Amino acid sequence: MIEPTTTARPQAPAAVFDWLDEAAELRARAGLTRTLRSRPADDPVLDLASNDYLGLTRHPAVTEAAAAAARRWGGGATGSRLVTGTTALHTELEVELADFYGVEAALVFSSGYAANLAALTALTDPDTLIVSDAYNHASLIDGCRLARAQVHRAPHADPAAVARALAERAEPRALVVSDSVFSVDGNAAPLAELSAAARSGGAALLVDDAHGLGVLGPGGRGALVGAGLAGEPDTVATATLSKSLGAQGGAVLGPRRVIRHLVESARTFIFDTGLAPASVGAALGALRLLRAEPERAARAREVAALLAERLTGAGLHASTPDAAVVSVRAPGPEQALAWAADCRTAGLAVGCFRPPSVPDGYSRLRLTARADLTDAQISLAVATLARTAPRP
Amino acid sequence: MIEPTTTARPQAPAAVFDWLDEAAELRARAGLTRTLRSRPADDPVLDLASNDYLGLTRHPAVTEAAAAAARRWGGGATGSRLVTGTTALHTELEVELADFYGVEAALVFSSGYAANLAALTALTDPDTLIVSDAYNHASLIDGCRLARAQVHRAPHADPAAVARALAERAEPRALVVSDSVFSVDGNAAPLAELSAAARSGGAALLVDDAHGLGVLGPGGRGALVGAGLAGEPDTVATATLSKSLGAQGGAVLGPRRVIRHLVESARTFIFDTGLAPASVGAALGALRLLRAEPERAARAREVAALLAERLTGAGLHASTPDAAVVSVRAPGPEQALAWAADCRTAGLAVGCFRPPSVPDGYSRLRLTARADLTDAQISLAVATLARTAPRP
Ligand SMILES: Cc1ncc(COP(=O)(O)O)c(C=O)c1O
Ligand SMILES: Cc1ncc(COP(=O)(O)O)c(C=O)c1O
Repeated sequence: MIEPTTTARPQAPAAVFDWLDEAAELRARAGLTRTLRSRPADDPVLDLASNDYLGLTRHPAVTEAAAAAARRWGGGATGSRLVTGTTALHTELEVELADFYGVEAALVFSSGYAANLAALTALTDPDTLIVSDAYNHASLIDGCRLARAQVHRAPHADPAAVARALAERAEPRALVVSDSVFSVDGNAAPLAELSAAARSGGAALLVDDAHGLGVLGPGGRGALVGAGLAGEPDTVATATLSKSLGAQGGAVLGPRRVIRHLVESARTFIFDTGLAPASVGAALGALRLLRAEPERAARAREVAALLAERLTGAGLHASTPDAAVVSVRAPGPEQALAWAADCRTAGLAVGCFRPPSVPDGYSRLRLTARADLTDAQISLAVATLARTAPRP
Repeated sequence: MIEPTTTARPQAPAAVFDWLDEAAELRARAGLTRTLRSRPADDPVLDLASNDYLGLTRHPAVTEAAAAAARRWGGGATGSRLVTGTTALHTELEVELADFYGVEAALVFSSGYAANLAALTALTDPDTLIVSDAYNHASLIDGCRLARAQVHRAPHADPAAVARALAERAEPRALVVSDSVFSVDGNAAPLAELSAAARSGGAALLVDDAHGLGVLGPGGRGALVGAGLAGEPDTVATATLSKSLGAQGGAVLGPRRVIRHLVESARTFIFDTGLAPASVGAALGALRLLRAEPERAARAREVAALLAERLTGAGLHASTPDAAVVSVRAPGPEQALAWAADCRTAGLAVGCFRPPSVPDGYSRLRLTARADLTDAQISLAVATLARTAPRP
């Protein structure tokens, strides 16, 4: 946190937010200014920045399902899922998601963020130790803060450290929490080892499969199916409908008793309006398409491997992708920013991650390997990245 | 919180969630079981349970705008608002919302819940005292928990108590937080007095106008416009797009420096996928309709007044509505539940609020006065409620 220095009490109404300007000034001096860029519908830029892994967001099967749902059910869900906000369409999506993921039940939320807050707060209590990977997503970290549990931050991807923390705990209950695919670098968590560590310590395992669903596992069924852990009685997944499924929303997937508990006690479920029907419809459309065309998941992984291979061939420091994200190291934050800007000028959109949004301090570009990228587009992207790369 | 008693460490994977069944058992014994009911698209029930205050959720202007947005922009926003998730449609909605509400700027979130978490966490720091009304919505309470500020829970609707808490504080900064219309009972906060108290204490004022936007103020411009406080440099509002505007999503409305600060530092903005285009389109459609037909807001208030008057005439304990919510007191939780069930059997959907979801311990039915209710529907609702009322 960057803290402004003002400490005197503001005297006039116009002055109460002066400290925000000081904070902005500090961020600007640190090169951390962020601004919104609004994109047109017919954006000519080649997109390697979104999380649209399967390229389904604008697929007619998805957009027509969204349109049909809005017409049939209305623009919104009209209330909390427990009052008027559960339509038959929500139930249909929950049944099909659970079946696809190989779990007893699923519960849909207004966002993946809300699903993570719900799972962490409702599945823990003051008698619980949460063991959370140091590189976990912001929504999991906020969930840990909101929960009334004790929280232990474990070193990144270190099942032995998780086992130690569990063995040394005083709390009767424990929950091990990890991203399945870490969002910045795209590396996969050691799920089988994490599950073994959790079991040896009598803990449950919660996996955020935001970047795994649609990409990992047979036909994109996700990281837990891939690791043989879906349907296990001690394992819960969260997912988003906003990435591979081209919509908005989130879900918790797991044993029926877990889902019932969330329905009855998760605040971000009970006190939040249900997901809009159009988003429910879009996600359902994408899910059905993925079932019909399971090769899309493998293609996303193939594109990632091709991208990484060719970037490395061009002399760049690309990660070896475990899913559909490739990251490319930059010498520093200014160079990363300039590189991303030069790519954009050349017609290529890439993500740019700098401290404090990177857990390890390294600035990098983040590339999304969409399943619908052609070989020509992959070559163009690699050539653009190589041409605009900062000199070493 | 209801706490199960198990404290031994679970031995087998199948046992780690046993405590959830014990918790369910305790809730069942306390009569607090909640279950999801899935509604059909052509539900014949008369709906007085949703938050669709203006009856716009299924208005063609709203559903067609949602459908068109999904087709033009895709099923989802594809990424964080700061990466690829800001479409020109998001910007359009933000400009029109700010203009309608009479503030410099607006920022759209994936839900009202996320907007509240953002405002509370980003506009406070460890040097801030938050003074929060005891009856505030769950999302504001969770925002207080997530914030790194000190939190003082003030008695309900008590500006003098707020002024005292501010005067006695040690922190240089302070933020006074209140719902504009309290969601359970529908009573309005004393905004002018709260603003005066905040100002006398050098504090900013944050108002959650979820149940005010579209209902209060001239043409439904909201509670702050109604109280002459919109556009003030020390005042910020949050709102939802999921109630009067018939869509999904939330917004923060206020001075430009506040919005900039949220863009650069609010975690539920930065690390969350942008609102789905269909929901953006639906909200924009509803907003434009409300501008064209400003009498809808007054009609919602009129329906509420009629409902309350006739319910009182029928001998029931109805609240005097400040906005579009009427609550009717029940003798106890079981009677409230049975009453709501009898109404449903008779074709009328009403909300049922019992402890722990009511701040004051009183069980009641909650009725929504939609602007599109006809006089015949109002009479039918009153007759049904009177006929099924528990004997005193
Ligand atoms: C790992 C991870 N979890 C959760 C989320 C939140 O999901 P949503 O954007 O659907 O709220 C994201 C990104 O947005 C993510 O990357
Ligand atoms: C007062 C209040 N604030 C915020 C919210 C959350 O808004 P949303 O449902 O759009 O997330 C609600 C209800 O849902 C509410 O009643």
